[in-house]
Amino acid sequence: MAEKEKENTTGITARKEQDFSEWYTQTIIKSEIVDYTTVSGCFAFRPYGYAIWEKLVSEVDARLKKMGVQNVYFPLLIPERLLKKEEEHVKGFAPEVAWVTEAGNTKLDERLAVRPTSETIMYDSYSKWIRSWRDLPIKYNQWNNVVRWEFKHPTPLIRTREFLWCEGHTAFATREEAEKEIKDIMQLWTEVTEELLALKGAAGRKSEAEKFAGAIASYSIEYLLPNGRTAQGPDAHFDGQNFAKAFNITFLDEQGKKQLVWQNTWAITTRMLGIMAMTHGDDKGLVLPPAIAPIQAVIIPIMFDESKEKTLEAARTIRKQLENTLRVKLDDRNEYTAGWKFNEWELKGVPVRIEVGPKDVEKKQAIIVRRDTGKKEAFPTGKLAEEITKTLKEIQTGLLRKSAEFLKNNTTEVKSMDELKAAASNKKAATGAYCGSRECEEKLKAKTEAKSLCIQDKEEGKCMVCGKKGSKAYFGKSY
Amino acid sequence: MAEKEKENTTGITARKEQDFSEWYTQTIIKSEIVDYTTVSGCFAFRPYGYAIWEKLVSEVDARLKKMGVQNVYFPLLIPERLLKKEEEHVKGFAPEVAWVTEAGNTKLDERLAVRPTSETIMYDSYSKWIRSWRDLPIKYNQWNNVVRWEFKHPTPLIRTREFLWCEGHTAFATREEAEKEIKDIMQLWTEVTEELLALKGAAGRKSEAEKFAGAIASYSIEYLLPNGRTAQGPDAHFDGQNFAKAFNITFLDEQGKKQLVWQNTWAITTRMLGIMAMTHGDDKGLVLPPAIAPIQAVIIPIMFDESKEKTLEAARTIRKQLENTLRVKLDDRNEYTAGWKFNEWELKGVPVRIEVGPKDVEKKQAIIVRRDTGKKEAFPTGKLAEEITKTLKEIQTGLLRKSAEFLKNNTTEVKSMDELKAAASNKKAATGAYCGSRECEEKLKAKTEAKSLCIQDKEEGKCMVCGKKGSKAYFGKSY
Repeated sequence: MAEKEKENTTGITARKEQDFSEWYTQTIIKSEIVDYTTVSGCFAFRPYGYAIWEKLVSEVDARLKKMGVQNVYFPLLIPERLLKKEEEHVKGFAPEVAWVTEAGNTKLDERLAVRPTSETIMYDSYSKWIRSWRDLPIKYNQWNNVVRWEFKHPTPLIRTREFLWCEGHTAFATREEAEKEIKDIMQLWTEVTEELLALKGAAGRKSEAEKFAGAIASYSIEYLLPNGRTAQGPDAHFDGQNFAKAFNITFLDEQGKKQLVWQNTWAITTRMLGIMAMTHGDDKGLVLPPAIAPIQAVIIPIMFDESKEKTLEAARTIRKQLENTLRVKLDDRNEYTAGWKFNEWELKGVPVRIEVGPKDVEKKQAIIVRRDTGKKEAFPTGKLAEEITKTLKEIQTGLLRKSAEFLKNNTTEVKSMDELKAAASNKKAATGAYCGSRECEEKLKAKTEAKSLCIQDKEEGKCMVCGKKGSKAYFGKSY
Repeated sequence: MAEKEKENTTGITARKEQDFSEWYTQTIIKSEIVDYTTVSGCFAFRPYGYAIWEKLVSEVDARLKKMGVQNVYFPLLIPERLLKKEEEHVKGFAPEVAWVTEAGNTKLDERLAVRPTSETIMYDSYSKWIRSWRDLPIKYNQWNNVVRWEFKHPTPLIRTREFLWCEGHTAFATREEAEKEIKDIMQLWTEVTEELLALKGAAGRKSEAEKFAGAIASYSIEYLLPNGRTAQGPDAHFDGQNFAKAFNITFLDEQGKKQLVWQNTWAITTRMLGIMAMTHGDDKGLVLPPAIAPIQAVIIPIMFDESKEKTLEAARTIRKQLENTLRVKLDDRNEYTAGWKFNEWELKGVPVRIEVGPKDVEKKQAIIVRRDTGKKEAFPTGKLAEEITKTLKEIQTGLLRKSAEFLKNNTTEVKSMDELKAAASNKKAATGAYCGSRECEEKLKAKTEAKSLCIQDKEEGKCMVCGKKGSKAYFGKSY
């Protein structure tokens, strides 16, 4: 018991400012978001972490369904010949594919890829299912697991060999419909990341070198992290007719003419949990945005022997009062002290703590403590629901505002590659004019140690590499 | 267009009574539950089929959470040395494991199993996470995909190389708690299969030869299918301390003494959709129980040029009236005739069809047609919601009653292996006294072509094989 207590109350031993990487690992492991497993680069989602993902999934899923997206499930294992059908696509993914070559004691005739993404297996079916304009649009999505066997150093949630995601794969009769969907999806990603995860990123188009393998154009939201590195968030790819050609996905239009479909793919992944933890957390551990927190308020009774029953009763009454409007938990465990519990729930990032002790019972009040600011305030029991709802909204807005300010304050406008290099080595993101060509990307990477993250669609200025027409782009050192 | 119309209106060309296997395949393929893919033995879940699974998942998940179960996610790929830790377990699964041996261009040092089930990877973490009685019970579940590379002939949904399921893996301080959970889970399985899928099965303990690889005792619900074969449904395994020993999962009890945990595992899979389709379907296609149907009522306006707008308006009003209490769809497609739509939604098993034509609009009524009985009745528009709700309940109850009667009427009581053999070759399930030993199972299988399905826990009669103490058991020819 003593040993356990010691371990947990110690909490995070690294400082976010001083040793970000160690701080991050301790935070998500000790708060029980994920844990290491014996499989290198693969992590276990513990109940607390998985509950956050479940909440994100249920919100995104509901919004996708409103857009007319339907869920499906396709096989995990993809025959090698199918994966090879779209040339750019296989080039992009082959180096990271985990291959099944044996089953039981039998060597397979053909290698099977553990899906790194499902375009090829899905589009093989689409070519069978789509025949006429009546079958379009097809807006299918799957929530599943994918494996990309990277050999880089893994970072839990951010860079892992298996992750969870949704992968949307849609097909339209016209280019216009497909391009409109890209806008709608990017809007959806902006909404859910801001409203739920309180994260502000920079959205735009990927450069030619950075776009999705097989796409005409890729769009993403990019996040600047506290250590000065950047991470790509949710994305949407306009695939044009590339896969339609490779997989022969055609339809008869209303005039009876054979046409190729126009396609998109888009995704949001468990990486978002890592970006969220990195962004909002502090030296005490996680700080969860209320909209996504599995527990929004934790009630901790301060129990002394003589007044224990009365205090517990008051705590239970408060729970009852709140449980219909909030995700609330009463921590009435006997075997831990109130102080130990304070630390544990702070570590786990619960947005609001409600303390109730014998004196509060007498005064018919409870103490509310905010996780983000540490601010402590007493409120009459009757007003708790109202006050906490207000506080949660303030926390949510405050976290998003802080995230937006952080991005703004740490993004430098640069006019040249030298300025970009200086910004990047100074842990800043940068904006500047850029053309987005493969040639310029190569030069830029070699010279600056940064890369382009995304480019805005409006023309603005001259490319800092080649001097031709450019647009405002974001740059950074990416994970 | 003509071609497409022809294909769909033709519907199911095989009769359930005459060619069950062909009827079943056509039914679930043409109703768009699943489809074949290029990966042999692996199927794609189409939106209509996946929506049924999603509904089952959400109901089961809510009930599990009420029991205190928490969701987690563990890696897909399990190192070979981990899989080998529990001897019986690996013996049972190794012949069907799909092995990852290469990643990118690199040959891996150790083969990785695509999870056939997750005991080994999860318990490796449990041994790290569980330290004291305070950490117990652990009731974790994951909804995921598993691969068992069977070489038998696949049957869509029933016997496939990849399937979706939930796998619960729990750990308790005492044997009593673990055994109680087995009862609770079996009760849950009975409830969801009866209330949602309208399926009546025979529940009991598996024989020694048929139990789960690594378990002390396995329990399951077994279903008799219309073709006389049987299929195992959801199950629950009491693993005792077998895995706790293999994975060293210990805890300090309240007295500070080191103890091994007691464990269970349990699951329900996508196979249930196949059992449901086989049981309730008829020569027109699927018949879905209302509680699980993605669409409970479909409104079909009978549109003639002159009255089209009025009819459509009436249909929309009906939808509005129903959409808050029912999962309702208005099929207002112009490009298909009403008759074509009748066939399509019958094929898809929608429990209730609502027809509304110009004459019905005049009379302020609609026609309700039941999918299960074909019964047609007119109701005043104002009473539709009430009448349909009543009808859906009747359909649900009726389907369950039919399923129970089918099981009862097709289960023969047998006194000897000869009688059992006769029953099995006559497409019946059978009950009889049985001891459940490995020796008797071997003899029984060899002599009767049937096997034991499950055994009831109450002693009753003498084993029909060895003559020793027996219990009532179910037998059949299993998938």
